[in-house]
Amino acid sequence: MKFSESTDDPHTVTELFRGSPEVPLTSDRHVQLLDTTLRDGEQAPGVSLTPAEKADIARALDRANVSVIEAGSACTGAGERETIRRVTDLGLDAKVTSFARGVQNDIDLALDCDVDGVTLVVPASDRHVETKVGTTRDDVVSKTEDLVAYAKDHGLWVEILGEDGSRADLDFLERLAKAGLDAGADRSCFADTVGHTSPEHTYEAVSRLAALGPTSTHTHDDLGLAMTNVYASLAAGADMVHATVNGIGERAGNVALEEVAIALHHCYGVETAKLDELYDLAQLVAHSTGVDLAPNKAVVGQNAFTHESGIHTDGTLKDDSMYEPYAPETVGRERRLVLGKHAGRAGVRAALEEHDVDVDDDELSTVVERVKTLGDRGKRVTDADLLTIAEEVQGRERERRVELKDLTAASGGGTPTASVRLLVDGEERVASGTGSGPVDAAVEAVRSALGASANAQLDSYHVDAITGGTDAMVTVEVQMSRNDRTVTVAASDSDITRASVVAMVDALDRLLASDPAPTPADD
Amino acid sequence: MKFSESTDDPHTVTELFRGSPEVPLTSDRHVQLLDTTLRDGEQAPGVSLTPAEKADIARALDRANVSVIEAGSACTGAGERETIRRVTDLGLDAKVTSFARGVQNDIDLALDCDVDGVTLVVPASDRHVETKVGTTRDDVVSKTEDLVAYAKDHGLWVEILGEDGSRADLDFLERLAKAGLDAGADRSCFADTVGHTSPEHTYEAVSRLAALGPTSTHTHDDLGLAMTNVYASLAAGADMVHATVNGIGERAGNVALEEVAIALHHCYGVETAKLDELYDLAQLVAHSTGVDLAPNKAVVGQNAFTHESGIHTDGTLKDDSMYEPYAPETVGRERRLVLGKHAGRAGVRAALEEHDVDVDDDELSTVVERVKTLGDRGKRVTDADLLTIAEEVQGRERERRVELKDLTAASGGGTPTASVRLLVDGEERVASGTGSGPVDAAVEAVRSALGASANAQLDSYHVDAITGGTDAMVTVEVQMSRNDRTVTVAASDSDITRASVVAMVDALDRLLASDPAPTPADD
Repeated sequence: MKFSESTDDPHTVTELFRGSPEVPLTSDRHVQLLDTTLRDGEQAPGVSLTPAEKADIARALDRANVSVIEAGSACTGAGERETIRRVTDLGLDAKVTSFARGVQNDIDLALDCDVDGVTLVVPASDRHVETKVGTTRDDVVSKTEDLVAYAKDHGLWVEILGEDGSRADLDFLERLAKAGLDAGADRSCFADTVGHTSPEHTYEAVSRLAALGPTSTHTHDDLGLAMTNVYASLAAGADMVHATVNGIGERAGNVALEEVAIALHHCYGVETAKLDELYDLAQLVAHSTGVDLAPNKAVVGQNAFTHESGIHTDGTLKDDSMYEPYAPETVGRERRLVLGKHAGRAGVRAALEEHDVDVDDDELSTVVERVKTLGDRGKRVTDADLLTIAEEVQGRERERRVELKDLTAASGGGTPTASVRLLVDGEERVASGTGSGPVDAAVEAVRSALGASANAQLDSYHVDAITGGTDAMVTVEVQMSRNDRTVTVAASDSDITRASVVAMVDALDRLLASDPAPTPADD
Repeated sequence: MKFSESTDDPHTVTELFRGSPEVPLTSDRHVQLLDTTLRDGEQAPGVSLTPAEKADIARALDRANVSVIEAGSACTGAGERETIRRVTDLGLDAKVTSFARGVQNDIDLALDCDVDGVTLVVPASDRHVETKVGTTRDDVVSKTEDLVAYAKDHGLWVEILGEDGSRADLDFLERLAKAGLDAGADRSCFADTVGHTSPEHTYEAVSRLAALGPTSTHTHDDLGLAMTNVYASLAAGADMVHATVNGIGERAGNVALEEVAIALHHCYGVETAKLDELYDLAQLVAHSTGVDLAPNKAVVGQNAFTHESGIHTDGTLKDDSMYEPYAPETVGRERRLVLGKHAGRAGVRAALEEHDVDVDDDELSTVVERVKTLGDRGKRVTDADLLTIAEEVQGRERERRVELKDLTAASGGGTPTASVRLLVDGEERVASGTGSGPVDAAVEAVRSALGASANAQLDSYHVDAITGGTDAMVTVEVQMSRNDRTVTVAASDSDITRASVVAMVDALDRLLASDPAPTPADD
């Protein structure tokens, strides 16, 4: 399985394609996931998880059938050890491990936390051996042998990881792995610590390690190659992949667990995780870490199963799989069709039907035209926009049930307070409210003015991140529901309070449209 | 270059590694980028670009030396054609093209826009040929021949793209490409329209197309394999890659242009773009489309060159390349070191030095401990936090220059107005201001109270996206600078106005700390 010649220069011919892997990617391959969200993921800048959050994530990883959970790095401090202990106490099916540097104290601290195993990280590249740690290759090898023996004596599962392995001399990397395995380590791990290497080099390195024993791979995405290098590793014989949920981690992060899991399932029938847990897991990690997902994040991003363009929406309405590689339900999600500048007839008709609006063919053409025009201006087309257009096209009189006449909000110190004046079915209603901020107070005032009969629910309230200046335009998008109707509305204003209230009042107005008049406020 | 046997079942042995590519990835390979941000990227849900924005992006793509710019889809409507014309009028070095469906009218509309060429998109999979378009394979082939001849007669560069090519019968895909090339097309393109396929299948399909003539590849990221499939395509002989800036596009998006460019440069010495333009390009597209980048986005994400963990920061301070695959300047960026729960001594000392604070070894230990504790609570550790800790550890009396005593903001209707009462060097100052919203008004009031001598600049104002409810905690982060000092401060409150003003006042206080007392407001 070993190449006859080493290619230390990554610019030379692709050895990768010259190889003939002994371990093809077929459905009988057994590949395991080692999740390092709680260790490498948590090292992402600005991320810190509380012990309770780490325990929640560990439980979710276990539900997703991940094989190994690296719960943290026991040497970091007492707080971290307490957290690791909380995870080991959960009694999960997954193996729970700690990161350990190449010193005995780190192994002792890991043992204190009752972990099942350790990933023992020792320097591999000369840059790390000499410049960072200030030692020699020989010393690293003999220390590794001692530490592996020590850890095995204490009943631990041991994985040897040569740090910066992708920039290490391959002969030394091989020697290091062999020494570790001979001393009893369960596996070695190829680490592209800085996300620097090519698939060809990964293939060669992993081939050499896999010839010695079970091999893991640890990839980073600095070049956008995290997944490609996982692929090269598996083709070269690796049988365990280090990954993090949503790909969070230092710099550009690690390979994303959910992408490895779906790609191996879809392309090769290799099962590594319970796929329908992936979306909840991603949401939990995004929420706990505060690291937002890009809308186009594969598998778990907001738009991963959203169709806007006319061609795609029309195709999807004819045949679900027309523009989807796999059903969204596979990963615990649902399909979304939204309207915008690329809207087509079938998509618009389907959206109108959801709101019980029938249009004839001519009307539909005009509605589509106007939806596209609105989208052309860079606007998201919400339910409220669509309904307004349909009413105007059909010449239906808009019966506005609720209208905002006046809004005042005071905040900054003391108790945030707001008042609103609404016209509800032509009758003026004035109410005030307090809240945790001006928006919250204004929303309370609206609720109070409408009274109990307007028992609508605010399903979601979203404000895009604000960057630029304090006078930037703020877009507020709300989704509200009442009985079995749901409506989305967006409003923009440089005053966040006003944008929030306008969106909410418009949503309430839409939800009340088909109702008898509400009763006055009863409080 | 053709395989002896077809592998239509993606679960069988990896043909990829059995191949022996005629076209290894070496630095003498010529690979071009076709950017489709303005077409496929703009089809992302919720994205719509104005003509001016499209022209700005086209200019930036041209500065980055992209070979082909697909400016839009001329058949979409009059507005889109106007936009494409604006791009063709720019006189760029890049070839400017339009997407065209397999109908003559689409080619005529593209010609109206003065484009240099078209990507002619015809159905390739039976799902598209039969279910979507309702025609036959033979009909698609003969129509393609006619349309290619027509487009070539009109002087266009023509690329034939078989839609849903990754789910097409490979023999038909080959027949279609051959027919197009024989009729005069300049190249064919393998399209994984739904982001469904494996690298093995991509390799086989592209090998077959590349045996016929120049071949492009168009990949999507639904399985996280967009880049892996580009890699397989290039190894199979493709010489043009369709990509979008930041990987935006339908669903999970397309392969990211900046990732393809840096990976080919770094791993193989293959140059496809002017790398130091990539960051500005990414920012421009993120800003124009409103599609935020994940902090861990490769190459262009906020954290791609940010180091927080102690080990990594210490290593980076010793040797820039210790934890970086390539210098951030390569892609027009700078390195950032930030503090958090994984902070180490070297990183903390370097940060203190930036603020001219000297600490002895014992003090440093205590500061590091307290920075870690703050980080443990899930907080970003800002400059202001660090300086406060250092002052307390060194028992230095905090000389607060500016303090917020009172804040009132009124908004909702009329002119947003705010007033502040500040203590500046013990002297009370009251001022009011108006603005486009309550935050803007309050910031104006602070400016007015401090007067001209506090000529600090608000470099950035950022509010994380707000989701959950109207009572959610809002975190405001500001960066302010004055002369050559810069300071970051974050403040959290459920009242966005209060959080914004507290952060700003704290930043001003820090910036004024080493100054003579400011003069009273002069307006």
